[in-house]
Amino acid sequence: MSHACDCQSASQGDTVQKEMTPSKKIPVLVDGVVLNGPQTDVKAEKFVEEVCRLVMEEVVLKATDVNVKVCEWQPPEQLRQLLDLEMRDTGESQDKLLKICQDVIHFSVKTNHPRFFNQLYAGLDYYSLAARILTEALNPSIYTYEVSPVFLLVEEAVLKKMIECVGWKEGDGIFNPGGSVSNMCAMNLARYRYYPDVKEKGLSGLPRLILFTSAECHYSMKKAASFLGIGTQNVYFVETDGRGKMIPEELERRIGQARQEGAVPFLVCATSGTTVLGAFDPLDEIAEVCERHGLWLHVDASWGGSALVSRKHRQLLHGIHRADSVAWNPHKMLMAGIQCSALLVKDKTDLLKKCYSAKATYLFQQDKFYDVSYDTGDKSIQCSRRPDAFKFWMTWKALGTLGLEERVNRALALSRYLVDEIKKREGFKLLMEPEYTNICFWYIPPSLREMEEGPEFWKKLSLVAPAIKEKMMKKGSLMLGYQPHRGKVNFFRQVVISPQVSREDMDFLLDEIDSLGRDM
Amino acid sequence: MSHACDCQSASQGDTVQKEMTPSKKIPVLVDGVVLNGPQTDVKAEKFVEEVCRLVMEEVVLKATDVNVKVCEWQPPEQLRQLLDLEMRDTGESQDKLLKICQDVIHFSVKTNHPRFFNQLYAGLDYYSLAARILTEALNPSIYTYEVSPVFLLVEEAVLKKMIECVGWKEGDGIFNPGGSVSNMCAMNLARYRYYPDVKEKGLSGLPRLILFTSAECHYSMKKAASFLGIGTQNVYFVETDGRGKMIPEELERRIGQARQEGAVPFLVCATSGTTVLGAFDPLDEIAEVCERHGLWLHVDASWGGSALVSRKHRQLLHGIHRADSVAWNPHKMLMAGIQCSALLVKDKTDLLKKCYSAKATYLFQQDKFYDVSYDTGDKSIQCSRRPDAFKFWMTWKALGTLGLEERVNRALALSRYLVDEIKKREGFKLLMEPEYTNICFWYIPPSLREMEEGPEFWKKLSLVAPAIKEKMMKKGSLMLGYQPHRGKVNFFRQVVISPQVSREDMDFLLDEIDSLGRDM
Repeated sequence: MSHACDCQSASQGDTVQKEMTPSKKIPVLVDGVVLNGPQTDVKAEKFVEEVCRLVMEEVVLKATDVNVKVCEWQPPEQLRQLLDLEMRDTGESQDKLLKICQDVIHFSVKTNHPRFFNQLYAGLDYYSLAARILTEALNPSIYTYEVSPVFLLVEEAVLKKMIECVGWKEGDGIFNPGGSVSNMCAMNLARYRYYPDVKEKGLSGLPRLILFTSAECHYSMKKAASFLGIGTQNVYFVETDGRGKMIPEELERRIGQARQEGAVPFLVCATSGTTVLGAFDPLDEIAEVCERHGLWLHVDASWGGSALVSRKHRQLLHGIHRADSVAWNPHKMLMAGIQCSALLVKDKTDLLKKCYSAKATYLFQQDKFYDVSYDTGDKSIQCSRRPDAFKFWMTWKALGTLGLEERVNRALALSRYLVDEIKKREGFKLLMEPEYTNICFWYIPPSLREMEEGPEFWKKLSLVAPAIKEKMMKKGSLMLGYQPHRGKVNFFRQVVISPQVSREDMDFLLDEIDSLGRDM
Repeated sequence: MSHACDCQSASQGDTVQKEMTPSKKIPVLVDGVVLNGPQTDVKAEKFVEEVCRLVMEEVVLKATDVNVKVCEWQPPEQLRQLLDLEMRDTGESQDKLLKICQDVIHFSVKTNHPRFFNQLYAGLDYYSLAARILTEALNPSIYTYEVSPVFLLVEEAVLKKMIECVGWKEGDGIFNPGGSVSNMCAMNLARYRYYPDVKEKGLSGLPRLILFTSAECHYSMKKAASFLGIGTQNVYFVETDGRGKMIPEELERRIGQARQEGAVPFLVCATSGTTVLGAFDPLDEIAEVCERHGLWLHVDASWGGSALVSRKHRQLLHGIHRADSVAWNPHKMLMAGIQCSALLVKDKTDLLKKCYSAKATYLFQQDKFYDVSYDTGDKSIQCSRRPDAFKFWMTWKALGTLGLEERVNRALALSRYLVDEIKKREGFKLLMEPEYTNICFWYIPPSLREMEEGPEFWKKLSLVAPAIKEKMMKKGSLMLGYQPHRGKVNFFRQVVISPQVSREDMDFLLDEIDSLGRDM
């Protein structure tokens, strides 16, 4: 392959150019391209400023405005018509692009709206947002200290502080693109500790490796087992009690069962804050079992980990210091912005690096002029990596630990308020007393209130939540999730997170569901 | 666990509240927290505006200013002293926070600087940046259509267009957090196609699975094989020719060897644009081999894929339409911002979904009121997922395909110019004629120019690039990478990407290296 080079002027050869400003030179044409001068586009710089202004006005400053719709629902086919999605040979005008940005905002779900309760994240943290705008402009990739000095030191500082919250004196860790990846990485690490040869030789020829997790665990456990070549059948789901918490005796029984089958238990994944019910597994008892059987204890605290910053609520994770690894997502309860997920590891023998390193010589050169132990990227499954710790760091700097604690306490107090309201109101029925901010409940429309709770009742009730959800989406007044769960028909799951949410929003939620569902 | 609830006022019970504005109510105290009214912080909103202004002034508008240093080097210990990293119990003032942001910018590497050539990404695309600021504020997570209608449709449109560029009539795909993850996902998909049972049963009991890739491949191949339980020893590295391109006959030989060993070949990973040399594997011949042996062909075009938008240079990837899957990162040559990586899949039988789905009932409910085939999140290994397609879409909309093509052509023309300059200059020696924008060369200081190219010469030369790198970092004038590579001692790798780079920067690069190294 050769590219014809048709240089039309001679360069100035090897004359040394000491000043930083380029000197004027004769235009050079190579392969039909004029190469002199940088191509700058002042218009495009202005565009960034205009979009910034639009975003401030239409998204940031409206974050707490309940008079804006949570979503402007359009079905896929219609929305595709409304948006001009096609990418053409020639570019669009800046006016057109600005209009597109307006449309994108208009038709997007306002996840920072006080009545967005649909996921395990919500709200808008201004400090985190400011940090994110800064890093989007700097566009770092945090593999090596030479390219990302500030962000690697920030990651180190944040990991250290999170490790303190867990209750370890020291430890190691890495930020990952989400809790699913953090859980996967923990699973791989536990496997490596057990069978270091897996890294080179793979699983072929090894017995079945078994991991244990509660029947209420996050679905990433199955994804991870499948991805890592362990297989979903080798995830043994341990039965939970009526509150969704793993039963330690059941765990012990299942470990024995696996051993009897000739399989090799290697890992227990406890959950602190389950996805649907918000349940916390009893970590102390589970740690006992793990110690007895020599198993790695990973705690998926992606959702519940943030309770660690609250002196009042950290008891929910009592015993977490006994874990070998912890996944914790500040992008959920602590509003760091999607994504911000830390995998924390108790080990101090560089296990994380040994497990993950591939020692790419083009990136992790060992003859650099600085201490290359700061080139922490080789602990990750990623190569390019975003500075996710920084946005959380900025919020933590701005609010202090006490400010983070206040947010968690407020979210739990609001949940408490909602639970009490649900108990008082006719037509609302709690699934169970919650431990955290997941409030699971049924709305029973008047037409079903006198009915006996038999199969016919449950069948009819299962249709209620989806129908109300459709109505609220089309009205745009509210968004919360529903799901069937382990034999329970469709119920609502309300999650409180953002400090921009008030008691009035809790009342509105119940009023609105009643108003949308009372004629069903 | 129970939280004492000390509600101090009765709520208004089940009265229906139809208006969107919350009515005035008596303050409610729960668990020591006053719950009325949203907690807004006008000061914090202003902070976002101030950081926006700072970012525009100090990062965006200085993107092409060569008088700013590329980096303001500080060793880790000193930088830690200069930055106030500690997170305290109480928060910092906004003035302090703004000062922190200034420091973060000051001590960060300017990856948008015209003389940042250190990685396979560089520069600043204003349209992508505007899109990223917009999505940071909206903070979407794109698992389901109900939460991310716009961004899922945009992802669909971008995937469709990228699939067209590859030369397929249709296909499937998903955006991942980086090329390493895209490669991993392709590897898992190929394995699933070969042994669907692996998803449930795992690899235990199966024979060794073997994948083939060139000796010049990206290190994510090893990371992936280790992570997926395949094992790095089961990655068979196929020898390359003098230009770094996989030798198809060698591939065929290695496949035969694996079969003779009783192992099971399942996948060939070709590379389009290798990390160090920028080499393109001969896809047509490799596809022949794959077809003959019934092997999945994955092309890691993370780096080289962007040449597909150039009619002049897409021949580098001739034969790519015969691949089963392709990884392509627009965050590299097309400057979409870290990260933006697509895994494209030729299959039309929903293999991607079958392979990855975990069917979480709380997220991917099947009784939704819209077409749930738009809930594409279950094709990913992630749960929360960022809208990475959107920023690339915005650039594509703004520039058009022709504008993207122009950028690629310009980068290759600049590379051509640099190569010709290197050939003309004393003391510079090309490793090889490049195919793409990776220009690999040695700088030979005057003291070594008369020396015979024996062991002593190479030993001395190996010290030159690290020493010059240290000088350029400390001076802040330039950043480019060096590495030893397959028997070749430390050489520089210069990578041209950004349209904000000019011929004058190429001249400066050579002048500066000569100036820093001539006394060695």
